[in-house]
Amino acid sequence: MNSSLSRLKEIDREIQLLEHTTALLGWDQETYMPEKAIEERAQQHSLLSGIIHDKLTGKETSTLLSSLGIKDSAGAAESPLGETDRAFLRKFSRDFYRETKIPKGLVVDFSREASLSQAAWIEARKKSDFSVFAPHLEKILELTKDKAEKIGYAEHPYDALLDEYEPFATTSYVKSIFETLKPKLRNLVKEISRAGQVDDSFLKNKYSVDLQEKFGREILVDLGYEFDRGRLDVSAHPFTTTLGFNDIRITTRYREDSFKTGLFGIIHECGHGLYELGIDEKIAGTVLAQGTSLGIHESQSRTWENMIGLSLPFWKYYYPKLRKMFPTQLDGVTLEQFYRGINRSEPSLIRIDADEVTYSLHIILRFELELQMISGELKVRDLPEAWNSGMKELLGITPADDAEGVLQDVHWSFGAIGYFPTYALGNLYGAQFFQKLDRDLGGVVEIMERGDFKKILGWLRDNIHRYGSIYTAEELCMNATGEALNPDYFIDYLEKKYSGIYGLK
Amino acid sequence: MNSSLSRLKEIDREIQLLEHTTALLGWDQETYMPEKAIEERAQQHSLLSGIIHDKLTGKETSTLLSSLGIKDSAGAAESPLGETDRAFLRKFSRDFYRETKIPKGLVVDFSREASLSQAAWIEARKKSDFSVFAPHLEKILELTKDKAEKIGYAEHPYDALLDEYEPFATTSYVKSIFETLKPKLRNLVKEISRAGQVDDSFLKNKYSVDLQEKFGREILVDLGYEFDRGRLDVSAHPFTTTLGFNDIRITTRYREDSFKTGLFGIIHECGHGLYELGIDEKIAGTVLAQGTSLGIHESQSRTWENMIGLSLPFWKYYYPKLRKMFPTQLDGVTLEQFYRGINRSEPSLIRIDADEVTYSLHIILRFELELQMISGELKVRDLPEAWNSGMKELLGITPADDAEGVLQDVHWSFGAIGYFPTYALGNLYGAQFFQKLDRDLGGVVEIMERGDFKKILGWLRDNIHRYGSIYTAEELCMNATGEALNPDYFIDYLEKKYSGIYGLK
Repeated sequence: MNSSLSRLKEIDREIQLLEHTTALLGWDQETYMPEKAIEERAQQHSLLSGIIHDKLTGKETSTLLSSLGIKDSAGAAESPLGETDRAFLRKFSRDFYRETKIPKGLVVDFSREASLSQAAWIEARKKSDFSVFAPHLEKILELTKDKAEKIGYAEHPYDALLDEYEPFATTSYVKSIFETLKPKLRNLVKEISRAGQVDDSFLKNKYSVDLQEKFGREILVDLGYEFDRGRLDVSAHPFTTTLGFNDIRITTRYREDSFKTGLFGIIHECGHGLYELGIDEKIAGTVLAQGTSLGIHESQSRTWENMIGLSLPFWKYYYPKLRKMFPTQLDGVTLEQFYRGINRSEPSLIRIDADEVTYSLHIILRFELELQMISGELKVRDLPEAWNSGMKELLGITPADDAEGVLQDVHWSFGAIGYFPTYALGNLYGAQFFQKLDRDLGGVVEIMERGDFKKILGWLRDNIHRYGSIYTAEELCMNATGEALNPDYFIDYLEKKYSGIYGLK
Repeated sequence: MNSSLSRLKEIDREIQLLEHTTALLGWDQETYMPEKAIEERAQQHSLLSGIIHDKLTGKETSTLLSSLGIKDSAGAAESPLGETDRAFLRKFSRDFYRETKIPKGLVVDFSREASLSQAAWIEARKKSDFSVFAPHLEKILELTKDKAEKIGYAEHPYDALLDEYEPFATTSYVKSIFETLKPKLRNLVKEISRAGQVDDSFLKNKYSVDLQEKFGREILVDLGYEFDRGRLDVSAHPFTTTLGFNDIRITTRYREDSFKTGLFGIIHECGHGLYELGIDEKIAGTVLAQGTSLGIHESQSRTWENMIGLSLPFWKYYYPKLRKMFPTQLDGVTLEQFYRGINRSEPSLIRIDADEVTYSLHIILRFELELQMISGELKVRDLPEAWNSGMKELLGITPADDAEGVLQDVHWSFGAIGYFPTYALGNLYGAQFFQKLDRDLGGVVEIMERGDFKKILGWLRDNIHRYGSIYTAEELCMNATGEALNPDYFIDYLEKKYSGIYGLK
């Protein structure tokens, strides 16, 4: 048994090395690759994916899993191994069964349709014409449903999809959480809309990109990001990527006339980066050395971006430095005005520009539509109308066209259905962790006011980061906070914060 | 037969994709990789090398080669295929046989010894203590001789080593060329030493790195380097690397107090880059899509760096621009003074800093020592003395210590024996091509004076670049110039140029 496990770990090691090499192909493509190299880069990607697939699903792997008594994706939970080895087998066998259940033909069809569909989506969005995208989305939906059937599920085909991004989460679980969340968020949006709006015009002054970057790098170091194990670069869309245990890179983009874009992009990705940087060395290089779910990952990025980076104590510490760097741009803007300005909340059409209060409503809309599409209740041709009426109902606004409506996100075009909910789960996990951290550290406000962010990082590492994927999201939440995910923490956090900003009662 | 050939081409395609991915691992390591990522990067490298080895030497490859009637490294030269397919089989089967002849145990031993030896070399050079390196060099030599025996050779074990870098070249061929070259170079060195030395003190002024880079990028575009198919970055040692048919990147390094370092590094690597950028699209992505030998590769980099970049007509065109950029640094320096200064020639200890006249003598010394070590005439313990007396004989100077003598180059520490001669062959090929180009274009001086470098590139593409590895170095030289390699062209070029600079008769 030990020798089977050792051999399986060797195979896993090779898979991880190839995954990290693939991550380098991706990082380079988004940052430094010359324009015309794109076609061969796609071929390199696809060759490596094929090699990884063969290693993961090969006969040797299958024999080794059998010899370890593993016959389904539940792994060897009942075996007499230690906790880490059990977690390893659980994670590895889940990947194995997921990958083997989807027939190669479906993978090929999916990948071909996804690239056609993505191209169609780009064109459709440019023309703001949903009909260009519709037939492709229909194909993608069909293939996605087929995939869900092949993977299998207990209750709802959506379970099989969700599981890829948020392992072990179920549709009914997400549904019930979102049902608690929705009315409370709508209520808060309404209350804010009745209050007087805050001024954020100073954010649109010109902020030199070089200075933005300088400031961002200083903050990264303060927050605990390690530049000898990572990098900050520029890409069209910010991202974090893991190229190795000691190689976790982040990117951002800068806009001279939009101060928040660059800096909060940096802090958000820093949150993702710190999670991966904080994984325990004893699981380095294994399949366990990654965030346990996208929801937990997003909880880290959003904690650093929103609960820390958009907090008053954070800026109590940093605002004097920022004003020194941008004296004309921030001339006459007090700390409190700055704080209120960067937290301005109002219903808006584009998800990625949404504030903390409205953001999760954008997600709930997408989740509801995805469910209806997967169950067949909603036809693709009726999607734009459903989108617009959903926006009206949830946020009280209606897109002028499909480009700023149903066509705004890339996810569906390549079949990433089941992904969106993790963004909102991240907000919820983040708030729940943060209140426990606040309690455990005896007051996070003062810690932030004196710039002692390493102390916050210490708690996150001890309670979340170091475990990588040893625990599921649910286990992690229970271990760290003593209870299951509870959306009230997020609501409480928002109500308190925004009551202060908008003078709500 | 056609289906075997097609399948072999598919395998080759995968190998090339993996080679290019490996090149990305290497490029990133030298440019942007975070410091602590080095250990896993080495593992990624070695995993990919293993996968490439398995694909190249696998049973399927061997069966396909047999079914194509190929039984040795001569390939299918006599088969009824077209020229390109014949060249493909020749190149592929040479790689196959070379790789299969070396037993896996030897590969593993070699790779382990090479890393130990490289580490010892670094320490030895730092301490300037050859005895730290000597036992490792002995091991490396032993393994290298073993490798040569396994690969096989007609006359001299050195043939088998040389062949890796300069395919089809033999020891006796290089020897005879170097024997013609040596006395003529020594003579020229002596004549120059009797003339008055030229002033190059202005090169040591402070030149802003940003402006150096700006100037270098402008020149790159003028010379025909394509930034949508390549990049310029900074690394400790300049290099060119191919990550794909449309992805050929170069690097340089800048020194504020040494103007030549950055710019001539750029022009040199540009020469390598232009060769790979100029390969015909019809062999893109195959094993033929690379320079045919290191000697021919070096001929391109040295033509652009020396015969073009260090020429008077080149600076007739660029010097006004350069003076505008660096008015104080070049205050009072005339075009002629600048030209003479950048071409200053004198015996010096370090190969990579040597000028055009003395450079090849550094190579001849290394070649002679390598031959003696491989044949067993020279023992490792006697190497420093042999080095020093060789320097005395060839250049009339003696290193003060081993760091600036026998320990200066990294090559031997990782077993790259047989590599050095290609640097000098590059000078010779370059001069021979350049005189033909001059004749064919009806006067390259005027072309350079008016900055029409694309015309020069056109000739090099038509006669050299586009063929990739379809022709051997010898065939290429014959096709392009109508005769075999002849060192007289290089000597004529040097004598003419340096007579002008130093007023020799």
